[in-house]
Amino acid sequence: METISVAFQGEPGAYSEAAALDFFSPPINTHPCHAFNDVFDAVEKKICNHGIIPIENTLAGSIHRNYDLLLRHELIIVGEYHFRVKHCLLALPGVNIEKIKYVHSHPQALAQCESSLTSLNLIQVPESDTAGSARILRETADKTSAVIASKHAAEVYDLQILKEDLEDNPENYTRFLILATEASPYDQNPPSGYKTSIVFSLQNQPGALFKALSVFALRDIDLTKIESRPIPGKPWEYLFYIDFLGHTSNKNSQRALEHLQELTPFFRLLGSYPRHSIKNSHKNETKE
Amino acid sequence: METISVAFQGEPGAYSEAAALDFFSPPINTHPCHAFNDVFDAVEKKICNHGIIPIENTLAGSIHRNYDLLLRHELIIVGEYHFRVKHCLLALPGVNIEKIKYVHSHPQALAQCESSLTSLNLIQVPESDTAGSARILRETADKTSAVIASKHAAEVYDLQILKEDLEDNPENYTRFLILATEASPYDQNPPSGYKTSIVFSLQNQPGALFKALSVFALRDIDLTKIESRPIPGKPWEYLFYIDFLGHTSNKNSQRALEHLQELTPFFRLLGSYPRHSIKNSHKNETKE
Repeated sequence: METISVAFQGEPGAYSEAAALDFFSPPINTHPCHAFNDVFDAVEKKICNHGIIPIENTLAGSIHRNYDLLLRHELIIVGEYHFRVKHCLLALPGVNIEKIKYVHSHPQALAQCESSLTSLNLIQVPESDTAGSARILRETADKTSAVIASKHAAEVYDLQILKEDLEDNPENYTRFLILATEASPYDQNPPSGYKTSIVFSLQNQPGALFKALSVFALRDIDLTKIESRPIPGKPWEYLFYIDFLGHTSNKNSQRALEHLQELTPFFRLLGSYPRHSIKNSHKNETKE
Repeated sequence: METISVAFQGEPGAYSEAAALDFFSPPINTHPCHAFNDVFDAVEKKICNHGIIPIENTLAGSIHRNYDLLLRHELIIVGEYHFRVKHCLLALPGVNIEKIKYVHSHPQALAQCESSLTSLNLIQVPESDTAGSARILRETADKTSAVIASKHAAEVYDLQILKEDLEDNPENYTRFLILATEASPYDQNPPSGYKTSIVFSLQNQPGALFKALSVFALRDIDLTKIESRPIPGKPWEYLFYIDFLGHTSNKNSQRALEHLQELTPFFRLLGSYPRHSIKNSHKNETKE
């Protein structure tokens, strides 16, 4: 079997790479990409057989840029993974925490650790990303600075973990989607424990969404996510993203989607994939 | 009449302050706050009679932190404003663009201008926020650096605008909410052209959302936004945020909300306020 290769956005040590290493069983190769668009390109051009992208975070919300890219490209969602974001304070090996004056990281990571950083009396220095600040610390060998990044970044750049669980709010999960050019085969028939993601537009008239949701309600299909967003360039027209429990090969799901397409000017199936619940993310929990 | 005073998050010159100056007629006083939570506090403690917070951006998505704060505080939404985010390249007066080597700003602003910055061949330097980088440029008087910030920041810090409309995607709007401790009086009776925001939870069972939406569909009430998000600390339980066209003093809206509360374990009215459509945001367009 072909070795798993996974494109991710960011530098080695990024949270996306850590999520890929949690999701797939070894051996896997990871492939850092500059921008999210490059992740899609790497999979489409067969440089990698998988891509991983963050799609929503419990604190920061949905990453709409990646919803846009899902629409612009023809890849299929073949998996999801809820990754518990744990911020660590990293420094060069042997450095004492008392000597640290500065802390470097992405502004969002700094903001998520504000209480901890205030009590440590550290001066915050914004950087472009978390793993990048770990790399720079390794390069500059600055003994007065620490960074906020993942435990995985500590391994990649051989840094010391001064503190773990630095985040003020522990309910910090990022949901990642795994992308490929083709759907994965499923074990059981009919498949169970699956989730399906779709996107569609509606005519802008009262009750249009209600009618669209009726195709699921009338068939007792459970929705796990719904989100509307304006269509860029078309004020007051919306795209709806829905995740529901079921697999497109289930008769019930098939009928619901056929019924839905009677109502939607635009419809696209993004993929069916095994559901990953936060409660089941033990691998990540115990590993960290 | 009491002078309008508006609390906003950020430094003087921030996009939030620019939005407040667009939304309200002069004279108004603006009050910079360190964190979003401080904006809510300033209004609750009557330091200001209004607060302004960003709630969603067409490119970056919803700002869930502010949805959380709406729930945690008892303020009322009294207005909305769609602000067109226009990034400008600012430098010290008299500096030639040829001499600029570095560009400082928040990583999100840098990312939104990536094509322009690449063609200008500028080295990107991340900072905590856009207006803050303008203030720092004024303080350091660095003639080799420019910043990305609002036109308003150029006025506040007496900087020169080297380039306007630097953003790669012009569909960059931020929707701001205006907060107060009490609802504003309305002109007409019944009021028209209003929007109402609510938040509620549902029992986790198939069709629950469908039933909730039926209270609007059965009364021909048009929804303008729907968003679900997990309740922090309660995996698989969701809060739903809905905006619909209508005012709570309309009989039809009242009946829909009474009906909805028969179905929802938790319900809260966030406010009714005059609708602001992107197409009507001429004041901001012409001013810039």
